[in-house]
Amino acid sequence: MPRVSKRGGAMPDSPIRKLAPLADKAKARGIKVFHLNIGQPDLPTPPQALAAIKNIDRKILEYSPSEGIRSFREKLTDYYRKFKIEVSPDEIIITSGGSEAVTFAFMACLDPGDEIIVPEPAYANYTAFAIVAGAVIKSIPARIEEGFALPPVEEFEKLITPKTKGMMICNPNNPTGYLYTRDEMNKIRDLVKKHDLFLFSDEVYREFCYTGAPYISAFHLEGIENNVILIDSVSKRYSECGLRIGALVVKNKEVHNNVMKFCQARLSPPLIGQIAAEASLDADEEYMLNNYNEYVERRKFLIDGLNRIDGVYSPIPMGAFYTVVRLPVDDAERFCKWLLSDFQYHNQTLFLAPASGFYTTPGYGVDEVRMAYVLQKEDLAVCLKILEEALKVYPGSKVKKPHTAQMTA
Amino acid sequence: MPRVSKRGGAMPDSPIRKLAPLADKAKARGIKVFHLNIGQPDLPTPPQALAAIKNIDRKILEYSPSEGIRSFREKLTDYYRKFKIEVSPDEIIITSGGSEAVTFAFMACLDPGDEIIVPEPAYANYTAFAIVAGAVIKSIPARIEEGFALPPVEEFEKLITPKTKGMMICNPNNPTGYLYTRDEMNKIRDLVKKHDLFLFSDEVYREFCYTGAPYISAFHLEGIENNVILIDSVSKRYSECGLRIGALVVKNKEVHNNVMKFCQARLSPPLIGQIAAEASLDADEEYMLNNYNEYVERRKFLIDGLNRIDGVYSPIPMGAFYTVVRLPVDDAERFCKWLLSDFQYHNQTLFLAPASGFYTTPGYGVDEVRMAYVLQKEDLAVCLKILEEALKVYPGSKVKKPHTAQMTA
Repeated sequence: MPRVSKRGGAMPDSPIRKLAPLADKAKARGIKVFHLNIGQPDLPTPPQALAAIKNIDRKILEYSPSEGIRSFREKLTDYYRKFKIEVSPDEIIITSGGSEAVTFAFMACLDPGDEIIVPEPAYANYTAFAIVAGAVIKSIPARIEEGFALPPVEEFEKLITPKTKGMMICNPNNPTGYLYTRDEMNKIRDLVKKHDLFLFSDEVYREFCYTGAPYISAFHLEGIENNVILIDSVSKRYSECGLRIGALVVKNKEVHNNVMKFCQARLSPPLIGQIAAEASLDADEEYMLNNYNEYVERRKFLIDGLNRIDGVYSPIPMGAFYTVVRLPVDDAERFCKWLLSDFQYHNQTLFLAPASGFYTTPGYGVDEVRMAYVLQKEDLAVCLKILEEALKVYPGSKVKKPHTAQMTA
Repeated sequence: MPRVSKRGGAMPDSPIRKLAPLADKAKARGIKVFHLNIGQPDLPTPPQALAAIKNIDRKILEYSPSEGIRSFREKLTDYYRKFKIEVSPDEIIITSGGSEAVTFAFMACLDPGDEIIVPEPAYANYTAFAIVAGAVIKSIPARIEEGFALPPVEEFEKLITPKTKGMMICNPNNPTGYLYTRDEMNKIRDLVKKHDLFLFSDEVYREFCYTGAPYISAFHLEGIENNVILIDSVSKRYSECGLRIGALVVKNKEVHNNVMKFCQARLSPPLIGQIAAEASLDADEEYMLNNYNEYVERRKFLIDGLNRIDGVYSPIPMGAFYTVVRLPVDDAERFCKWLLSDFQYHNQTLFLAPASGFYTTPGYGVDEVRMAYVLQKEDLAVCLKILEEALKVYPGSKVKKPHTAQMTA
């Protein structure tokens, strides 16, 4: 039997999905599992998108252009303009989800051995996509005590070598919910300019900023227009993760040409997804505002509740719909597995994502989990109760253990 | 401005799509362009697929499992069983088109520098996907004079080095339409077994075999079950290229586990595509037979017509819906560009794919083009006439030039 690739072995297991088999087993035992592990919004897809799908009147479901349907790209320019991002349709490339946008950005800009610097915790799959491209992630951990603010730029500069080709940020941030300030973004701009780096900027959560602080796009930063590759996706903002429609926005023509080669090789992004995503741009103010308000409410409710539990700490996320939470446990991954395998509270349990998978620096995130607030408040209340009770009886818990909770075999 | 990747530079331009800008310009000049360049069937998508899309009754268009929807994978096992391919749902992974299946197969099996041997001409994007994986394609050209039969296995053995990890075939073949015989498939099996290679087998055209000769799947070959990675797609067989739904079928558990890591990183294949593709499996006999008969007719008509044109030669393809044609021209790519830029016949012209892009061996395919018979017979008749007239006046033509055709500036 031939040997499989080492690259495959090096690929990280998804911290978001790797415990799914344990969750399936729990469900098979009749336990209700609350999914806080994955950023799958429970809010409705815009009716315009659903109607567009129903109204498809084609006899043949053909390839679309490799760069995506033109009318969709044109309409996206209006969308971006609302956020003061001025781009032309020719600077937008439609991809199969944000995932493909990151992959193609890395492929087009980085060669094997090239390095990118990433503040962490960071979206776990950046590492996976870097491995796909043969690139190396060098990271600087942000600290939960500082609410996951950007680490000092000097720390990043220490990492820069002749192989450093770029920096990757996610703003608002998955998994921390942090929103970079104007000052932080300017520091990033200066670093990018000084060392002539690519700036890969994942901004898929721009609709979800909760503190009144402004969303600052990488494209708002002057003088680095040719360094920026913006990653986007309709998945989260319209609750349509299943469409697999993202975008890569780039003004640098060489990067554009390189990305297009990868696009042409895979022929085209999904046709129906594009039709639905284009229609989603017509989602009305009320739809957007309802979703926004829902997340605002949940955020307040969840973070308040978490910080009331003995030994638990969550900073207040400023955007997106995640938070990284410190738990009073020996090992958060062991705790997450235990929740699914050995615990139930009134026949219910939690599926959380161990945060260690969002760090590449060893030893970080050991007592942290990521939670996505993609459930209704009533369910979040149950989740908080389950967490509280679980921490009382988990063998590796650092809080004292009363006798109220139930354990399964 | 930071430097883009060398890998991007190494990516081949798609021979199928790279002349698209010239075609667009021709259309802008008011010229009707017949697309024989791309395998985009003009036949209808099954009504079951269109109905399934119309009937989607979901409020949220969610992620699907990374390996694809279970009911779809279950139903695919019945489909494969009709072709005597016995696989379980757990051996099927749904991908974003056959493209992603090839990419993930290479990623999971090959490390940078690993080599795969490929008989050519071959589907051009295999080279692109190999570059993405950092792998190296070593190829043996098949000969148009021999109808593109498998070159002698000894030729392949000469290419085998310690870095050789696999062999890639496409059967029925794109671009040649060749269908490997039992004897040839057995030789491939023996080679794979002797050198313990992976056998990547792209069989997306299995429905389209025209000569009564059997379709032999790589999974029909005994003793190499753990070496085979079957690549599949619904694009061609149901005329739904835009759905971007393919599959990777593998019994080797290590390969499966490795592939799944890449699948998890990109989260999920398109949801709506899967729903439509699953419904397409209910396409009735009549639908499949109509399409089949249509291709049979076109094949006969096109190949007969081609071989009647002075200096033109096409072998008779046994499957798929392409043929590689030798033209009496100095350089087929120059001819293809000229057709789009400088020629018109009654305000019409042809878009052909230069075959050199389907070879990696330098100097091969210089006077060959690939044609996809994805147009109706009436249109193919016009195409034949355009080709005949074009060859009379093309400056690099090797046939004598009468005075009937028209040239534009």
